[in-house]
Amino acid sequence: MTDLSPTLTLACELISRNSTTPDDAGCQQLVGERLAACGFRLESLRFGEVDNLWARRGIDGPVLCFAGHTDVVPTGPAERWVQPPFEPMIKNGMLYGRGAADMKGSLAAMVVAVERFVAAFPDHHGSIAFLITSDEEGPATEGTVKVVETLVEREEFVDWCIVGEPSSTELVGDVVKNGRRGSLNAELTIKGKQGHVAYPHLARNPIHLAAPALAALAAESWDMGNEFFPPTSFQISNINSGTGATNVIPGDLVALINFRFSTESTVESLKTRVTALLDQQGLDYELNWTLSGLPFLTEPGALLDGVRAAIRQVTGRETQPSTSGGTSDGRFIATMGTQVVELGPVNATIHQLDEHISAADLDTLTDIYEATLERLLT
Amino acid sequence: MTDLSPTLTLACELISRNSTTPDDAGCQQLVGERLAACGFRLESLRFGEVDNLWARRGIDGPVLCFAGHTDVVPTGPAERWVQPPFEPMIKNGMLYGRGAADMKGSLAAMVVAVERFVAAFPDHHGSIAFLITSDEEGPATEGTVKVVETLVEREEFVDWCIVGEPSSTELVGDVVKNGRRGSLNAELTIKGKQGHVAYPHLARNPIHLAAPALAALAAESWDMGNEFFPPTSFQISNINSGTGATNVIPGDLVALINFRFSTESTVESLKTRVTALLDQQGLDYELNWTLSGLPFLTEPGALLDGVRAAIRQVTGRETQPSTSGGTSDGRFIATMGTQVVELGPVNATIHQLDEHISAADLDTLTDIYEATLERLLT
Repeated sequence: MTDLSPTLTLACELISRNSTTPDDAGCQQLVGERLAACGFRLESLRFGEVDNLWARRGIDGPVLCFAGHTDVVPTGPAERWVQPPFEPMIKNGMLYGRGAADMKGSLAAMVVAVERFVAAFPDHHGSIAFLITSDEEGPATEGTVKVVETLVEREEFVDWCIVGEPSSTELVGDVVKNGRRGSLNAELTIKGKQGHVAYPHLARNPIHLAAPALAALAAESWDMGNEFFPPTSFQISNINSGTGATNVIPGDLVALINFRFSTESTVESLKTRVTALLDQQGLDYELNWTLSGLPFLTEPGALLDGVRAAIRQVTGRETQPSTSGGTSDGRFIATMGTQVVELGPVNATIHQLDEHISAADLDTLTDIYEATLERLLT
Repeated sequence: MTDLSPTLTLACELISRNSTTPDDAGCQQLVGERLAACGFRLESLRFGEVDNLWARRGIDGPVLCFAGHTDVVPTGPAERWVQPPFEPMIKNGMLYGRGAADMKGSLAAMVVAVERFVAAFPDHHGSIAFLITSDEEGPATEGTVKVVETLVEREEFVDWCIVGEPSSTELVGDVVKNGRRGSLNAELTIKGKQGHVAYPHLARNPIHLAAPALAALAAESWDMGNEFFPPTSFQISNINSGTGATNVIPGDLVALINFRFSTESTVESLKTRVTALLDQQGLDYELNWTLSGLPFLTEPGALLDGVRAAIRQVTGRETQPSTSGGTSDGRFIATMGTQVVELGPVNATIHQLDEHISAADLDTLTDIYEATLERLLT
C-alpha cells in the first residue's frame, strides 16, 4: 500500500485501531496531534468510560465545527470477513475495514481538509472546531451530549456543524442530511386478568383486549410530513404476552412502540393521541415514555448552501437534502441552535461484514470539506 | 387420627405416598391388593414410565368401570403449606394433603364402596372394573389412552364409566360432568420482513399485519352452543414477536391459540374458518394444529339417571349435569362408545397450596358410589 493519499493513509491508521464502542484505542490522540500541529487548542473531556475531544482553532465567530466519532460497532464474526476487520486493505479501488464508512474515513478527510485549508489560509475568518466522541454507536449518554452540555455551560456556541456520518446513497455527496426525525419510544403494558383458557369468563385476556387497539394504532395517520420531513411513522417493535403454557390466559401484554416523527408532530401531541386512542378502547394500561431525540431541521442558509455549492464545485453533482433515516449525534448539537448538516461517504455497507467504501471517494470528500471551509471562513 | 372411616383411612394411606406425575409410588399396588381380596382379576399395564392398572370382577356385561388416577400435580413450595403436603391431616373437619381432592379421596371412596357392595351382593349382575393410571396430570400419552387402546384391541368394552374427578362446586354431588368440550390448539406464525424502524417502507411489520387478524379472530362468534354445551370459546394464550431491540422491526410473530369447542363445531369447521379469516386479511402465515381432545357427551340414560338418583337418595340433592371446564381422561374412555360421567368431591382447592376437602364428603361420596352400584348392577 504505497503512494496512498494523505486521507487514505490517515484512514488506514485509524481503522487499524480496534476502537469498538466505547473504546477510543488512541484514535483521538492521533487526530489531536495532527490538529495541534496546525494550531488547534485541545481539550480532552472524559465522561465515564468515554473519551471525547474538543479542539478549536481561532477565538472569533463564526465557529464551523466538524463532528464525528472514533468508535465503531462490533465486527460480528471476524472470520467471515474477507480481510481481518482491523487490517485495512484497498482492493479493486475499495477500502475495506470496520469503520471505513462509519466513520473513520470521513474523520480522516476532515483532518486533511483542515490541514490544507489552514496551510493556505492561516488567518482564516472565525474558528474551526472538532467535536469527536467514542460513544456514538453505544448508549450515547457520555459522549456528544455531555460535550454539548459543557459548551453550553460556558456559553461557547457552534454556528455551523458538519457531521461526518455516511449520508451518501450511491455517489459521494449525492445526499446530505439537513435534519433528522425525532424518535420517541414507549413501553405499553395492557392489563388483563390471568385465568384458565377453559374458564374465559373468569379472566380478561389482554391479547384480545390489545389486538383492536394495536390495529388502530398501526392504521393511524399521524401527520403528512412537510417539505422537509416524510410523514411521522409508528412501529410496534416488540410484543410479548403469555406464560408459555397453552392453557393459561395471561395477565398482561407488553409492547414496545416507536415513533419517528416529523416537525409536524410534537412529543406532547403524539402522547396525547396515543392515550386518547387507548382510552377510546376502554383499556387498563400503563405507558412509559422515553424520548430518544427531538427532530431538528437545518433550513437553507449559509451552511446548507455552502455545502451544496462545495459539492457542485468538486463533483458537479446537485445534492439532495434529506431528513430520512435513523438518528445521529447531530440531534444533540442542534439543541445549541447550531445549523447542522451530515455529509459523509456512501452508507451501503455500514454495520455489516466487509464494510467498505470507494477509496477515491475519501479524496473527493476531502476536497468537498476543504471547499466548504473556503466558502464559509474566507 | 383414630376412629377414621375406612374411606378416610385409605385416602390418608394414598396421600402419604408422594406420587407426583408420573410416579405411582405404590398406590396402585395398595388399591390392587384391596380389589384382589374381593374377587377382582388384576392386570398391570406399564407403558413408558407410567403404571396403569386394569381390574375387573365378573365376566358378563354390562361393565361399570370406575376410572381415576393415582398421580398428583407438584406441591409447589412445600414450606408454604400449613402441613407437609404428603402428611395428611384432618383439621376442623377438613382433610389436607396433595391429592385429597384430585383425586385420591374419590379413589378411596370407590374402593370402599365396591368392597361394601361386593360383600352385600357377591353375585351382582354384569362386571365391575377399575381403570387407574398415573399419567393423568402429565402428558397423558402413556396412561388411559393406551389402556383404552389395549381394551379396544381385544374387544373388551366398557358400558358405563364413573370418573372420580372432582366435579362438585360447593356441595358433594351438586354437579356431575356428563361431557366435556373438545380442545384444539394451534401455533400461528405470521410472516413479515425484518428491517430497521427508521426505514419501515423496506420492511413488513408482522405485528401490524397480525393485529387486525387477531382482533377479528377474538371477536368471532364460533357457535351458540346447545342444550348441553356452552358456546365454543377461542383464546390466544401466547403472543411473541420482536428481537428485544427497540429499533428493529421483527421478521415474524408467533401466537398460540386454543379452542374449547362444543358439538356444534367440528375440528374441520374450525380450521376452515380460521384459515378463511386469515386469508381474508391477506396474510402470509403458517398454522400447526394439535388436537388435544374431541368433545364427548353422555345424554340422559342408564348411567346419568342412575348417578342422579343415587345422589338424590344419599344427599337429597338435585344434581346439575355440566360440560364446562377443562379436559379429563373421560375423553379417551368415551371414544369406546362408553357412557361417561365424572362424579367426585368439591374442586375448589385442586392444584393449589393446602389442597383440602371436607372429610365427611368422602364418606358421602362412598355412599353415592355404592348406591349407584346397587341401581345399575342388582
